[in-house]
Amino acid sequence: MEKNKIRVAISGYGNLGKGIESELSKNPDMELVCIFTRRNPEDLKIKSNVPVVHENDIEAWKDKIDLVFLCGGSATDLPVQGPKYAKLFNTVDSYDTHAKALEYTEKMNKSALDGDKIAMISIGWDPGLFSNMRLMIGSILPKSKIYTFWGTGVSQGHSDAIRRVHGVKDARQYTVPVEESLKRIRNGETPELTKREMHERVCYVVAEENANKEEIENQIKTMPNYFDEYNTTVHFISQEELLEKHSKLPHGGFVIAVGETGNGTKQVVEFSLNLESNPEFTSSNLIAYGRATYRMWKNGERGCKNFSDVPLKYISPKTDIEIIGTIL
Amino acid sequence: MEKNKIRVAISGYGNLGKGIESELSKNPDMELVCIFTRRNPEDLKIKSNVPVVHENDIEAWKDKIDLVFLCGGSATDLPVQGPKYAKLFNTVDSYDTHAKALEYTEKMNKSALDGDKIAMISIGWDPGLFSNMRLMIGSILPKSKIYTFWGTGVSQGHSDAIRRVHGVKDARQYTVPVEESLKRIRNGETPELTKREMHERVCYVVAEENANKEEIENQIKTMPNYFDEYNTTVHFISQEELLEKHSKLPHGGFVIAVGETGNGTKQVVEFSLNLESNPEFTSSNLIAYGRATYRMWKNGERGCKNFSDVPLKYISPKTDIEIIGTIL
Repeated sequence: MEKNKIRVAISGYGNLGKGIESELSKNPDMELVCIFTRRNPEDLKIKSNVPVVHENDIEAWKDKIDLVFLCGGSATDLPVQGPKYAKLFNTVDSYDTHAKALEYTEKMNKSALDGDKIAMISIGWDPGLFSNMRLMIGSILPKSKIYTFWGTGVSQGHSDAIRRVHGVKDARQYTVPVEESLKRIRNGETPELTKREMHERVCYVVAEENANKEEIENQIKTMPNYFDEYNTTVHFISQEELLEKHSKLPHGGFVIAVGETGNGTKQVVEFSLNLESNPEFTSSNLIAYGRATYRMWKNGERGCKNFSDVPLKYISPKTDIEIIGTIL
Repeated sequence: MEKNKIRVAISGYGNLGKGIESELSKNPDMELVCIFTRRNPEDLKIKSNVPVVHENDIEAWKDKIDLVFLCGGSATDLPVQGPKYAKLFNTVDSYDTHAKALEYTEKMNKSALDGDKIAMISIGWDPGLFSNMRLMIGSILPKSKIYTFWGTGVSQGHSDAIRRVHGVKDARQYTVPVEESLKRIRNGETPELTKREMHERVCYVVAEENANKEEIENQIKTMPNYFDEYNTTVHFISQEELLEKHSKLPHGGFVIAVGETGNGTKQVVEFSLNLESNPEFTSSNLIAYGRATYRMWKNGERGCKNFSDVPLKYISPKTDIEIIGTIL
């Protein structure tokens, strides 16, 4: 453990930011210094007894903070906020737009090098732990087929898409992996799977009074990209039931690989998550990789990094000797 | 991928050494240069078209080899061979005596530093990938209980123990995780489990003619340490059936953790292996971490290392950009 506590800040106080605030209590080597926000600081009610600071004033905190957790979204927040923070602080974020990861890496690398800092990007479980598994298995078993399944879990994007259907008041969509396909892969098969064979979609919908439920169901099931390529089930329920039974944010998933060694010897590797709270688990990942980021920075490393750059010992508060003695 | 192939050697030509020889064909960035043995080199029939060299002559190969895979056993081979090789070559081994890992680390560190090399120890799946999971989960979820189950798989040690029973001609012992306990943990329970509640032992025994089978079964089931603390089943079969159905070396296991975030939110993480061939999978691990060892050495790192020191990208033949573009 570090002699002095790592002084951290949180930028953004949504589900992820709140998760980090809560989980920091389980990590005694870190100390929350302040929370940054784009809102009016006085309007932000936080749990901790630390200052809330407007994002325009972050530069004043440059020397008082070792690490900032960037808790904005990937679509519009991080591409703007990320490079701004990375010039001033070591940062960790959960950037998850796979298709633009290279572009984001380059931007963050430039800023972090300018600021003599590390920008650790795309931490969480996917990208993050799942990426870790895909890289690990693919390296150990060069002849392997690796599958990623998500769920059972709430997809915010799909829930939002349903809410935009005429006559829908509220909705929650669960992505569910197709059990039969999981079973085939676990048995060593390596099928080519369609979207329909990998995931199904289960929707809980609150309809407005007098809405045409048949029409709503049809609109959902035929919605391009979101639902038309999947087996979709629609359940109409009351607002009360939705709030009571579907207001949590569980998620999870599976990385399963079938590899081959020798002459056709099958080797099956599986990693799975069953999370009661997606944002709290993601927060826990950011904290552990935040610890690593600070240590790598102290060792002289600079620039944009991701999970694959991190020697795993740095995410642990244990010493090298404790790791060898108790974990190995 | 490296410009020049990594020149590797194998020390020891048992199951593990043969596995490495076979799996190297799937890793085009490596080239087998020779095989070291303690036996008479002329007596060793190997598959590859490379020299077989006696262990007394390794020093002559010092500058012709980038990396040696040490395939000896942990009990008596590696403690002697390891430090000898580590003075001359970068090495990777699968040292698995958890209780003496610190002592072995110190010895290997001294030798590797003397020789200006890296000695990568305890690579494989346990220690190795399972250690990786235990460290990862324990760091991300400080409030978690982590279980390791082994099997279904052949335990050589237990098979040998049965063979020493009077009247036994041959035997194979399978370690089997207790399904009921796996299920409880997957459901988020965190029970304290006895040895009996974690694993059961299933034995296939070939008895000598006229042997007292009842007595054999009793001796096995009451054998201290090996069997008395477990539910054990003994099946008597013919030598033919044993050879036909039980001559492979499958193994596997589970690392399962129940973590807690927030106020009692359960987060379940599971990693499992279902291996048709234990030695071939272990070989594949040694090769991937061998690649990392050589790269870390080229980067200037020296001394004894284990899985926790390795940035995962080094085990992959992919470039940084390929990793970000295709894996992240």
